[in-house]
Amino acid sequence: MMTDYDIIVIGGDAAGMSAASQARRINHDIKIAVFEKGHHVSYAACGMPYYISGDIDDHMRLVAIDKDDFTNKRNIHIFTESEVIQVDFKARKITVTCENCDSYYRYSSLIIATGARAVIPPLDGIHNEGVFFLRNLYQGITIRDFIDNNKPGSGVIIGGGFIGLEMAEALRKRNIKTTIIEMMDSVAMSMSPDIREKINQELEEHDVSVMTGTTVHSVVRENNTLVLKTSRGDIITDFLIVSIGIVPNTDFLLDTPLALTQKGAIIVNEESKTNIDNVYAAGDCATVKHLVTGGTFYMPLGSTANKQGRVAGLQSAGIVTERFNGIVGSQFVKVFDLEVGKTGFNEAEAKKLSIPAVSASTLWKSRAGYYPGSEIILVSLTINPENRKIIGGEFAGTQGAALRTNVIATAIAAGMTIEDIAYLDLGYAPPFSPVWDPVNAAAQKFIRRIPA
Amino acid sequence: MMTDYDIIVIGGDAAGMSAASQARRINHDIKIAVFEKGHHVSYAACGMPYYISGDIDDHMRLVAIDKDDFTNKRNIHIFTESEVIQVDFKARKITVTCENCDSYYRYSSLIIATGARAVIPPLDGIHNEGVFFLRNLYQGITIRDFIDNNKPGSGVIIGGGFIGLEMAEALRKRNIKTTIIEMMDSVAMSMSPDIREKINQELEEHDVSVMTGTTVHSVVRENNTLVLKTSRGDIITDFLIVSIGIVPNTDFLLDTPLALTQKGAIIVNEESKTNIDNVYAAGDCATVKHLVTGGTFYMPLGSTANKQGRVAGLQSAGIVTERFNGIVGSQFVKVFDLEVGKTGFNEAEAKKLSIPAVSASTLWKSRAGYYPGSEIILVSLTINPENRKIIGGEFAGTQGAALRTNVIATAIAAGMTIEDIAYLDLGYAPPFSPVWDPVNAAAQKFIRRIPA
Repeated sequence: MMTDYDIIVIGGDAAGMSAASQARRINHDIKIAVFEKGHHVSYAACGMPYYISGDIDDHMRLVAIDKDDFTNKRNIHIFTESEVIQVDFKARKITVTCENCDSYYRYSSLIIATGARAVIPPLDGIHNEGVFFLRNLYQGITIRDFIDNNKPGSGVIIGGGFIGLEMAEALRKRNIKTTIIEMMDSVAMSMSPDIREKINQELEEHDVSVMTGTTVHSVVRENNTLVLKTSRGDIITDFLIVSIGIVPNTDFLLDTPLALTQKGAIIVNEESKTNIDNVYAAGDCATVKHLVTGGTFYMPLGSTANKQGRVAGLQSAGIVTERFNGIVGSQFVKVFDLEVGKTGFNEAEAKKLSIPAVSASTLWKSRAGYYPGSEIILVSLTINPENRKIIGGEFAGTQGAALRTNVIATAIAAGMTIEDIAYLDLGYAPPFSPVWDPVNAAAQKFIRRIPA
Repeated sequence: MMTDYDIIVIGGDAAGMSAASQARRINHDIKIAVFEKGHHVSYAACGMPYYISGDIDDHMRLVAIDKDDFTNKRNIHIFTESEVIQVDFKARKITVTCENCDSYYRYSSLIIATGARAVIPPLDGIHNEGVFFLRNLYQGITIRDFIDNNKPGSGVIIGGGFIGLEMAEALRKRNIKTTIIEMMDSVAMSMSPDIREKINQELEEHDVSVMTGTTVHSVVRENNTLVLKTSRGDIITDFLIVSIGIVPNTDFLLDTPLALTQKGAIIVNEESKTNIDNVYAAGDCATVKHLVTGGTFYMPLGSTANKQGRVAGLQSAGIVTERFNGIVGSQFVKVFDLEVGKTGFNEAEAKKLSIPAVSASTLWKSRAGYYPGSEIILVSLTINPENRKIIGGEFAGTQGAALRTNVIATAIAAGMTIEDIAYLDLGYAPPFSPVWDPVNAAAQKFIRRIPA
């Protein structure tokens, strides 16, 4: 049996549900269906560390949309536990495996929003009891249940990226002795060295052990605990969370005419269009344009997923002017009491991309020095010295350190120079900033040290 | 007797001291002098409400620079209690009245940074005991001393501008029954109507009485209290603070060839240059270029004073490339627990300037909705509908409401459109923002309501 839809969306998380809702918003007549492999749609993946930490009590708080409510109010057919295993782009037809649904569906427009999954390292024992991955809501619930039920004394996180750092905070909040194992020389390797130093200090102050330059060879289960065989000896832990990256869920699209990157991300343009007519992609399964390089980039983030999904939905439903011009690579992460923000490229990243880059760091007050509670923010800026344009900014501190990153993000998107930023008219009042905002001050000091 | 200086600065507050220090920084050999009418140099005028409130204990915390220290370390001659009463621009000579200094000094370059003074309304009894003005440090100390010594039960503030609002908070912190009297229809008249509503709610919640549309006719002193004769009857109060605006300190420059606006502000360009060769001006006595109108504007703010002073100092000492391109009109104010930010022009202001303008307001979450403590921020954006460029933004709320204004300030400076802002790649993490930052969300909703 075959049913026709005007728009079929594969994947019911941020990008997919944004796409479906936006398409419905501007067109009440078309038939729209969403196929989701899991049980829930539209859950907030980024909230999971705060569910595991206990900051959020009920995992349903993370589910933004109630499926039935959504179906009834918006008239979008949502098929959960329904995995799309094949797409025939020529016949505009998908093949679905599920319990109570048909096997084939035809579409006029297809939006692929299958997201990404956790990378599972090919280690002996990686599927042992007590080993967890964190990507989807089910995995988040599993970890929380494990902690609630077993009250583990110790936990190890493999991977010191942003998710690993958030998980370290979550485990410490549960009063678990926490160790991060990182293969590279430092946690938060995407950050500048001095920002990393602040992050490391924060971890140390909150009793998180960090083992860098350490490779895990295998995971052995012994007497209700895990023994990690590592390049620096055995480590015993009650459980293990692996957070070493994610890969796009596009295996079912291999060997089709759909253009993917070497790493499997679907290549899209600013209109969320793929290389195939009437086929869109959005979110963690897709690339995005980077405004600094001008090229295609893979940087899966919730903020981007929502923007791309929105554009895919509007484009597929007929608003052909809607575009997401691209990212500058903005990210925030909270590491205990430290706010960390990053946008653009730092010096090391730029050089890898053959972009000329120089950077400089500045410590500056968060508020007027005389105002009670003023603290210190670390700002690291990176410019292309050939045209003096800002290409990166990183912030670490408190009292708006993260939010200040957004000024640099805006400046990068606008093509501003370091000189523009030095004199940018930012707001001032003693409770919120010094008379020279840290953004201004960092740019001023940059110019002194690295004049044009 | 006559002494020669390479650079003479008139006025030793933010703009003047910035100018002097920057000139010295890049040139160790020139002779620099600063003439300041008052006793202190470089005090933080914007900090005075927090000194009066008791948040800051010692007024010396507001004095950024110790005069002797500055003189010795930077070799800048600082003359305090020395008022410049005349400038002979042809002879490059100033006339000073003071106790222990010469009467005449010659300069090669002159930087005028005399600031502004409180407007004193011409009312009967305005100089009575118990009537205070707030502009310079001496006045701030006087008010604090009065409160400390007299423990007044009630205070009235005439003027509901930003300073008036900060003073209301200061008086409430001292447990004083507080009334704001405003001639116009509302306090904070520079803000959009819905932002004003939030401010009014905040004042009400903190027991500040507000009397709008009220004119004060005279001030009578009776039995140790003041009786204000107003258009709405008599008001009895223990003391009165008048904060109805400021005027440039440029009376001594009238009838000279120096170009002033009708209201007495010295007209300068982006290099802080006046119409007279080798004469610069900066800060509250000077105009500034507004990036939205492209024209000259008078908007005296501490942040601008520092930037203009810096440029004046560097220009006068030979760095002829240094420029402050102009303001967009960014301002923050804390009203009790409410953060308020403004940048650019709102609809009413734009229309007064004959700039086409439409605006729309949005309520949006400060953090991910599921993250504990997420609150609501009110965002009001204004664009020029002819080119869709953003020309104004106002924010009221908590948790970074004020700092978010800086994204719009940057976007205005860069000439971004509302569509650019709707998809701007701003940072996201649940503790700091929702997946659509309030800035993005306000722009998205704006576009829905007012499409291109």
